[in-house]
Amino acid sequence: MTIVIPDTDPALLADLAAASRILAKRGVVDAFGHVSLRHPENPELYLMPKSQAPALATPGDIITYDLDSEPLNAGSRGSFIERFIHGEIYKLRPDINSIVHSHSPSVIPFGLTRTPMVGTFHTAAFLASGAPVFDIREKFGQTDMLVCDCAKGIALAETLADKHIALMRAHGSVACGKTLQLSVFRAVFTEVSARIQTAALLLSSGEPLDALEEEEGRLADAVNDAGSLRAWNLWRTEITMETGW
Amino acid sequence: MTIVIPDTDPALLADLAAASRILAKRGVVDAFGHVSLRHPENPELYLMPKSQAPALATPGDIITYDLDSEPLNAGSRGSFIERFIHGEIYKLRPDINSIVHSHSPSVIPFGLTRTPMVGTFHTAAFLASGAPVFDIREKFGQTDMLVCDCAKGIALAETLADKHIALMRAHGSVACGKTLQLSVFRAVFTEVSARIQTAALLLSSGEPLDALEEEEGRLADAVNDAGSLRAWNLWRTEITMETGW
Amino acid sequence: MTIVIPDTDPALLADLAAASRILAKRGVVDAFGHVSLRHPENPELYLMPKSQAPALATPGDIITYDLDSEPLNAGSRGSFIERFIHGEIYKLRPDINSIVHSHSPSVIPFGLTRTPMVGTFHTAAFLASGAPVFDIREKFGQTDMLVCDCAKGIALAETLADKHIALMRAHGSVACGKTLQLSVFRAVFTEVSARIQTAALLLSSGEPLDALEEEEGRLADAVNDAGSLRAWNLWRTEITMETGW
Amino acid sequence: MTIVIPDTDPALLADLAAASRILAKRGVVDAFGHVSLRHPENPELYLMPKSQAPALATPGDIITYDLDSEPLNAGSRGSFIERFIHGEIYKLRPDINSIVHSHSPSVIPFGLTRTPMVGTFHTAAFLASGAPVFDIREKFGQTDMLVCDCAKGIALAETLADKHIALMRAHGSVACGKTLQLSVFRAVFTEVSARIQTAALLLSSGEPLDALEEEEGRLADAVNDAGSLRAWNLWRTEITMETGW
Repeated sequence: MTIVIPDTDPALLADLAAASRILAKRGVVDAFGHVSLRHPENPELYLMPKSQAPALATPGDIITYDLDSEPLNAGSRGSFIERFIHGEIYKLRPDINSIVHSHSPSVIPFGLTRTPMVGTFHTAAFLASGAPVFDIREKFGQTDMLVCDCAKGIALAETLADKHIALMRAHGSVACGKTLQLSVFRAVFTEVSARIQTAALLLSSGEPLDALEEEEGRLADAVNDAGSLRAWNLWRTEITMETGW
Repeated sequence: MTIVIPDTDPALLADLAAASRILAKRGVVDAFGHVSLRHPENPELYLMPKSQAPALATPGDIITYDLDSEPLNAGSRGSFIERFIHGEIYKLRPDINSIVHSHSPSVIPFGLTRTPMVGTFHTAAFLASGAPVFDIREKFGQTDMLVCDCAKGIALAETLADKHIALMRAHGSVACGKTLQLSVFRAVFTEVSARIQTAALLLSSGEPLDALEEEEGRLADAVNDAGSLRAWNLWRTEITMETGW
Repeated sequence: MTIVIPDTDPALLADLAAASRILAKRGVVDAFGHVSLRHPENPELYLMPKSQAPALATPGDIITYDLDSEPLNAGSRGSFIERFIHGEIYKLRPDINSIVHSHSPSVIPFGLTRTPMVGTFHTAAFLASGAPVFDIREKFGQTDMLVCDCAKGIALAETLADKHIALMRAHGSVACGKTLQLSVFRAVFTEVSARIQTAALLLSSGEPLDALEEEEGRLADAVNDAGSLRAWNLWRTEITMETGW
Repeated sequence: MTIVIPDTDPALLADLAAASRILAKRGVVDAFGHVSLRHPENPELYLMPKSQAPALATPGDIITYDLDSEPLNAGSRGSFIERFIHGEIYKLRPDINSIVHSHSPSVIPFGLTRTPMVGTFHTAAFLASGAPVFDIREKFGQTDMLVCDCAKGIALAETLADKHIALMRAHGSVACGKTLQLSVFRAVFTEVSARIQTAALLLSSGEPLDALEEEEGRLADAVNDAGSLRAWNLWRTEITMETGW
């Protein structure tokens, strides 16, 4: 069976490359991590830059993948080993159209301990419904920690279930959204909220935090659809000023 | 009844837009937050940039509002949802002529716990009289956390009462002053002092901090009137070097 | 009695202005703080920039003071209120030729608690002999916290005694050295060491830190005479690249 | 006996100077610290920049040393006092071809306490096999803390034994690798992992961290051979954009 790769709006490719650079600029990714977008013309495909440090991404680096994470037009360009994270979540969650995978440093501690992440403020409201922790040991034993095939991607997607964020023990996290803007926004504010929660726990002397309640989180996260566009407008502008695209 | 919008000194509009950028540059605001100025010609009006990331504000973005936070000359420009914070504080507190609302990250933990903010050093002396916490749940139950109408603005203003700073649970804070320079100064040093207090609590092993006493705070804060001008001179210069205005 | 102000090497004035900017660039000072130099031609005088944010200092801003901190050639230029810190330490400590006063944020917590600063590594070896805390309340009761006259300067100098660093409760600190390079170096590494010690205390579960012993500190600090020149060479170069002087 | 100094590929000299600047840019070194490379043509020699702040290194600054850390072609260029760290590790560990010595601030606390470093995520997998602490007091009593001769270098190398990282009490650390890219990568992620572990310990309420197990560490570190090249590609590019080489 041959898959026809639909044409892609060049502005969208530029936005996806810009998203990689935004995440690098905001300290969410360093030399590692990736952001993808479900193909707007065919939900059985997704777009992601080639394997390299996200800060170097350009519009010409975007590869199209099927949902088994097979590259369809890579040519000589390499693919991220952990692309299966993206394909398997897109399969399980038709409501999700963009995914960020990162090792953002303030988030990792929450995957190393039993302290659950909470929504520390309305901008991080998407955390109020919980952020489950994926421990690759449970199904796969001793590994190199990488989500390097479909089976591991499926296990991660099943841990994510119906949430927006999943943590990965001793590894990092994934942030999901129905738009590119929203997944980037959530990846940034997961990192910010983790930093806030860590400080709050230092102040709390063991008492529970007055964080967002679940219903507050649901109501506040609805506003973030617009909020993510305001943030994107700033962050995207910064990339254009640096790159010209 | 028609309100005549008085002319505004263009230098003042530039200063207000610059204040937005100063707050972004100092890490007090990111894609969100806003700073306003009571109109110098008519105390029943206030000035605030249009709804956008503060780092992008320009002198042409300033809208005039009445104290019910109705925009008087917005044209096609959008208004911040939470502008009611500003209008209602201006109504209740004739001594306040400028307000900053932010989600500055080191401050949020103090709204999530029972640890009161203190004045950790003379530059943050305005905190020595206390920083009350506004919990929107108390009057309004489960909400999206936003101060999106006059009633919520009034409740926040009543929590602020006669203080310079109010924290907002799971949201952020407001910093007020009799001048633009002073509200910006207080927003910046509320963030700095929060960071200092968090570290001090880590060192204190549960003993009370040797922070500013209330009278020390009152005396030291009087000096900050001049101090805020020295800081402004630096911060405003940086914006001029970047923008040309 | 007329004091003849000796000529000053223009390169020295540039170095002192650069020291102000170095401290700003390294996060030791923000809009406040100052660095001075005993006059190389007359030990009864000292040099310090005019009152302004240190990041703005230029060689033309340097004022000459006598040791009572009276400005001798200020003209229309303003003087720092707290210049008495400098004059009184120079009087009491003939071995000190340069002083930095700052509110560097990681250091302030050590003036708010009973936790003494230690030398966390050899570059901060000057802390191994101790950093006493000056509490202005003890002699002067409720004040605006500022060292704004000779009496308060004397009290601070007496607390400093024979040390390199003194902390000031709810205010900041002073760092001293026999050269400009050494006082700047010590101000920078007091901040760095405070940050390291804070993290170490978090790890230590209440056990004492394996910090520098006093004799290790004495031996290691001797090496910092050369070390401060290596750091200066880097930091001074950065200022020249920005300012041309 | 005369040692013939083999020719060195100019691209390699540029890479070694760039490595110094990369470490400075990433906050691993400040005015101090050094990175060396075993000579690719003669394993009994190593290459290291002259004594200066690493951020200033240029390809023309590289000196060749024998394994007793005698400079062979220094001319008027000064040598780092602590070069014996490098020579003695190269002697004891033929598998190591590059070494970074730094005082990176988040790592020092682990040398001041009994808390062992762990591998907090797969990128820091090289820490999962442990990071022993070298206490110079044990063999040498009260010193200036510097590894300033062969005997001290040997003692440090023996503490390192077969690990990738050794901490130095009240001083800093060394990070080793079989390539320049890998030693730089390990120095950077030792600092990042230290910061993550410190936050995780704050969250953990005394329970052990769910860090990498030793076998996970071994498997994940194998992947870092490729990972270090991806990071290098980004970091090296940044230096070329700044320096032209």
